Amino acid sequence: MAEKRFVEQITPRDADFAQWYTDVVKKAELIDYTSVKGCVVLRPYAYAIWEGIQRILDGMFKATGHENVYMPLLIPESLLNKEKEHVEGFAPEVAWVTHGGSERLEERLCIRPTSETLFCEHYAHVISSWRDLPKLYNQWCSVFRWEKSTRPFLRSREFLWQEGHTAHADEAGAREEALRMLDAYAELAERHLAMPVLKGRKTDAEKFAGAVETYAIEAMMHDGQALQAGTSHYLGDGFARAFSIQYSDAGNAQRHVHQTSWGVSTRLIGGIIMAHGDDSGLRLPPAIAPVQVAVIPISPQKEGVAQAARDLADRLSRAGLRVKVDESDQSAGWKFAEHEMRGVPLRCEVGPRDLEKGVCLMVRRDTGEKAEVPLSGVEGSAAGLLAAVRDGLYAEAKERLESRIRDAFHLDEMKAIAAAQPGFLRTMWCGDASCEEAVRAATGMKSRCMPFDQTPIGGRCPVCSGKADRLIYWGLQY
Amino acid sequence: MAEKRFVEQITPRDADFAQWYTDVVKKAELIDYTSVKGCVVLRPYAYAIWEGIQRILDGMFKATGHENVYMPLLIPESLLNKEKEHVEGFAPEVAWVTHGGSERLEERLCIRPTSETLFCEHYAHVISSWRDLPKLYNQWCSVFRWEKSTRPFLRSREFLWQEGHTAHADEAGAREEALRMLDAYAELAERHLAMPVLKGRKTDAEKFAGAVETYAIEAMMHDGQALQAGTSHYLGDGFARAFSIQYSDAGNAQRHVHQTSWGVSTRLIGGIIMAHGDDSGLRLPPAIAPVQVAVIPISPQKEGVAQAARDLADRLSRAGLRVKVDESDQSAGWKFAEHEMRGVPLRCEVGPRDLEKGVCLMVRRDTGEKAEVPLSGVEGSAAGLLAAVRDGLYAEAKERLESRIRDAFHLDEMKAIAAAQPGFLRTMWCGDASCEEAVRAATGMKSRCMPFDQTPIGGRCPVCSGKADRLIYWGLQY
Repeated sequence: MAEKRFVEQITPRDADFAQWYTDVVKKAELIDYTSVKGCVVLRPYAYAIWEGIQRILDGMFKATGHENVYMPLLIPESLLNKEKEHVEGFAPEVAWVTHGGSERLEERLCIRPTSETLFCEHYAHVISSWRDLPKLYNQWCSVFRWEKSTRPFLRSREFLWQEGHTAHADEAGAREEALRMLDAYAELAERHLAMPVLKGRKTDAEKFAGAVETYAIEAMMHDGQALQAGTSHYLGDGFARAFSIQYSDAGNAQRHVHQTSWGVSTRLIGGIIMAHGDDSGLRLPPAIAPVQVAVIPISPQKEGVAQAARDLADRLSRAGLRVKVDESDQSAGWKFAEHEMRGVPLRCEVGPRDLEKGVCLMVRRDTGEKAEVPLSGVEGSAAGLLAAVRDGLYAEAKERLESRIRDAFHLDEMKAIAAAQPGFLRTMWCGDASCEEAVRAATGMKSRCMPFDQTPIGGRCPVCSGKADRLIYWGLQY
Repeated sequence: MAEKRFVEQITPRDADFAQWYTDVVKKAELIDYTSVKGCVVLRPYAYAIWEGIQRILDGMFKATGHENVYMPLLIPESLLNKEKEHVEGFAPEVAWVTHGGSERLEERLCIRPTSETLFCEHYAHVISSWRDLPKLYNQWCSVFRWEKSTRPFLRSREFLWQEGHTAHADEAGAREEALRMLDAYAELAERHLAMPVLKGRKTDAEKFAGAVETYAIEAMMHDGQALQAGTSHYLGDGFARAFSIQYSDAGNAQRHVHQTSWGVSTRLIGGIIMAHGDDSGLRLPPAIAPVQVAVIPISPQKEGVAQAARDLADRLSRAGLRVKVDESDQSAGWKFAEHEMRGVPLRCEVGPRDLEKGVCLMVRRDTGEKAEVPLSGVEGSAAGLLAAVRDGLYAEAKERLESRIRDAFHLDEMKAIAAAQPGFLRTMWCGDASCEEAVRAATGMKSRCMPFDQTPIGGRCPVCSGKADRLIYWGLQY
């Protein structure tokens, strides 16, 4: 039987972006398909990337006073039905449990598509006084939505995520929280994932079911399409009224709480792939790369080389880096290609001539740049190069985002630009849902968000030519 | 409306152990009940204990070369049916999904009760050569079993756990792995949770559905009943044959892999409560206590006291301890009772007179012992006292375990001892399932395990008086 252990070719990115994506997720060993449609296995490498994201976010959450909890997987139909807009949004896409063992259930239970209703039921139990507020809870779990068409990471029936759910004494506190968590997501995306984002508010048509306000971070993928990478919702007191979540304030009056919810998911992994990947495979931001430095002994049969590679790796590990020495019996060229495919940010080659000179060769995954580095200060050099890889990936993505945002003033112009090259369009908008729908019908683009910086670029709606006081972004989306 | 913020009374442990347990889980704010029977909310304090257990175990798993993955939540009925013994064990207690949105599914999907079948499907895809072995995978997730009667942590329809699933080239490798992970569980229980355990092999009647061998750690609760705290299974090649998981060995022959699986769950939290708790509430082992030291300012209105308490807490935090300063407006006595209820291992009181003397007062939760400790070396003192609390809890539990193991030689004697005081019975056993069942019928006790140290205490089965070469433990169980 033939060995499968060779680095397989992937489709060039510009030839067929969708096929390139599928090739990368399979050949970098991120996922495996299963006999359950729309559900994949997250293989060790993908799960380790998710653990990296969790590590960063969980730290941010705890540093801002949030606590983790765990709510049930199943929601009784009557509980899901309590908040009208919410159930209308989710009921069409939930999976229903109807039998336990051989018994038919009296009431159907759905697998959580999101857990607002469960958090609300609990908050009604545990909140009674202003002293109980705010409640700042988060949950790491999987959720399930019965999607028709699915793609690994981008749109799965089951996905892993975190969902924050908070309750506050008043609107100001809840609005502040929703924006604080949006900022946390933007920091995760930009600083740690090297993925620049637009931050803003969603239109009513694009809001979360049951929210007063939905905020989002929107990233641009290599092909110019948008990925909604995280959302944060101000829920008002609608859920609190539906679930009777009340507290007595300092003056002993009964008030409803104001709530938020916010989440990011394994979808971010799809974003990392499509924002940074190239024709050789993944390019991972160092903050979440499971292996940050791959140390490769050159001519490892020569005396002292294998040991020198191990010693070097030990030193880098002790300096806090995630390091792997590749001592497999493959050729050096094969190893280079494999670690490139897996997006390892830095390759460190060490061979007999390097050792004689007291150096090793560092190769950046983002640019391919090589640098001979003295072994004496290798820890600092590696850390510096990893920072440079992050900055390089960010700059490249930022340049793409900025160069592919175009201003437009008429629907025909929007159509022409959208047809010529995908990207984001920036226009004014009158606020009318029918004009929003007209843009979608003409260009395929949905509204992305209304940015916080609302410096106008005109005064007329590109669709109806009516008075327009809103600045808004549009784009094709994953 | 009355404030609920007082430390409520709990039922004395010896008056009604079951009610004491229920009081503790509610009043220490570990869980909340939900409208889904058998599913509870893990509140922040319980979830933080679980995070502590995860941190320890995940470190052990990674240090021994295991990798985390994520498999789907749902299993198609046809996949569950592939291994005959396995499906017979689990089918009666699974929850079935029959509808996605408004559509009826062609094939029912069950919520995973455990994931052997999914791991096997994946292993069949990714294992083809001896170079691919061993595969050492673990998953952190929740599972669902349609239990009839439920109790928080001990028996829930949904619970959080980890499930390890490994594939090896041969029987020896798999058996070694199963025992290695049993040892990891024993180390978690004894060293970190201060909970002494018996290690051994289960009888055929008590084996996991589909296993060749099931190993377990068994702990004794305060009331003398047993808690099966973790299991590790050697699965043989039965699953590999059912799922066609084959590899070509170095000589190019096709072979089936040998597998293991092993798991511990949030049940361990029930074990911690029942092994260590007392009439004042929880007593948490320091390794998993969310708060290890509660710093309580005495007369905090006096100049310098509040600040001194904060400074002290900062110093302890910087030394790596988990610390909370309680600056709420409750009385000191109320605070003492609350932190006792929550099982905080060490209380640190600091008041005006202490500050004058340059000391603080440390109070151990396990014994109530007080020690005046100089502020100058408070970090070392606190760490030392936390180690002493662990040792104290362990010694107490160990003494109980040892004093409540009784040897017996006849079934009548077993009945009499079991009726007088619950504990573990140690006997010889002929190996016959009908004798095992006779013990259960007569005493209510099930077999716990056959310990690895098989030094005989006789030669006859207490039931049939036949030749008996097996040493075995029996006990009532949770």
